Amino acid sequence: MVRLRLESPGLGFESDGMLHQHLDELSIRTKGREFRMITAEVAGIVSAAKLSTGLVTLHLRHTSASLLIQENADPDVRRDFEAFFSRLVPDGDRLFVHTAEGDDDMPAHVRTALTTVNLSIPIANGRMVLGTWQGIYLWEHRTHPHTRQLVVHVVGE
Amino acid sequence: MVRLRLESPGLGFESDGMLHQHLDELSIRTKGREFRMITAEVAGIVSAAKLSTGLVTLHLRHTSASLLIQENADPDVRRDFEAFFSRLVPDGDRLFVHTAEGDDDMPAHVRTALTTVNLSIPIANGRMVLGTWQGIYLWEHRTHPHTRQLVVHVVGE
Amino acid sequence: MVRLRLESPGLGFESDGMLHQHLDELSIRTKGREFRMITAEVAGIVSAAKLSTGLVTLHLRHTSASLLIQENADPDVRRDFEAFFSRLVPDGDRLFVHTAEGDDDMPAHVRTALTTVNLSIPIANGRMVLGTWQGIYLWEHRTHPHTRQLVVHVVGE
Repeated sequence: MVRLRLESPGLGFESDGMLHQHLDELSIRTKGREFRMITAEVAGIVSAAKLSTGLVTLHLRHTSASLLIQENADPDVRRDFEAFFSRLVPDGDRLFVHTAEGDDDMPAHVRTALTTVNLSIPIANGRMVLGTWQGIYLWEHRTHPHTRQLVVHVVGE
Repeated sequence: MVRLRLESPGLGFESDGMLHQHLDELSIRTKGREFRMITAEVAGIVSAAKLSTGLVTLHLRHTSASLLIQENADPDVRRDFEAFFSRLVPDGDRLFVHTAEGDDDMPAHVRTALTTVNLSIPIANGRMVLGTWQGIYLWEHRTHPHTRQLVVHVVGE
Repeated sequence: MVRLRLESPGLGFESDGMLHQHLDELSIRTKGREFRMITAEVAGIVSAAKLSTGLVTLHLRHTSASLLIQENADPDVRRDFEAFFSRLVPDGDRLFVHTAEGDDDMPAHVRTALTTVNLSIPIANGRMVLGTWQGIYLWEHRTHPHTRQLVVHVVGE
């Protein structure tokens, strides 16, 4: 293992400046079960915060939709994710008793727990340090459309 | 997708005040495999930190119990979570060789890995921005009682 | 539940000092599918940042390798993790259509999603508050060797 201090000015960075915070929220209307790429919207909030170095934290305020950092190119990856999770946690599974809100409701809770509702990503040179292939997705797990609230907190300088 | 700046004073917030930190720990005695709602205890630490805007990070110092943000109302949801995870990672699974500490030990590790041991939640208006239905749970995966340590870090202003 | 303020000076801590940030990156060459313990390397960056109290956030810039906090002692635990995930998400599963990069590629994405690519751990007394049995692993899910980039952000005082 080699410890690198990258050439880019943002990495290997050390500072004592005055930190400030930025707090915002995105409201996202989903079409039902789907992957919604939200990288650009989050990047817009990070950019508006005008930080060079810092940390952005995303929190999705729901229990049946989740956040996922995954491959941002081939749509087959999302198709395969949906196929895998549908097989692992099938809608209408007789195991579940919490079914009053629909046979996709409890699976949506489980799929959310198996992924996550919050993410924290460092900022360098004013941008999130996502890898080349990393996109941020809101993954809607319910079959009907929903409006989802995502809080974005940024701290840095 | 619509970007909202919420009406509430804490969102759309931007600041240059002096940030401060608060670090605390909760010690939680579990009764064996169970969901322990800890939202109020964490909220108490956030409240004591007297911040308007910031970020709280929870870290559970264990490998066989985890943190979960999930539905805080219907107890059937927790029952169904337990049923699903018990089926997915059954105690006594012959696949496992790490069994010296009991046939629930390796399943407890796997259940922990499938969920998480740390969470980061923004703070607005002095409170965590949890959704209406979101509760924070400590999920004990061992069948016997344990004492679990949860570190709570708060930063903000 | 009992709320504890630990005896250690770092916990129960409150401060108004000037916060500073430190940003660094590790480049890790994996040998193919394996667990790489990276606790010491991350601890080295935290130590170099010379903070007493703060927060470290790790972000792995990939979609087919992940981060995991798990048992740092018995190698059988890692063996069992690998056995469980190999059974849950088998290489070459006919369910998957994204197979151009190999029959381990889509399983690697799914295994990454079921664990995580970012972690946030509080710092007290200059060290991460990991539990006694907690180690930080980079879990390589591809069968061939890869070079993985891990960004480390530290904020505190």
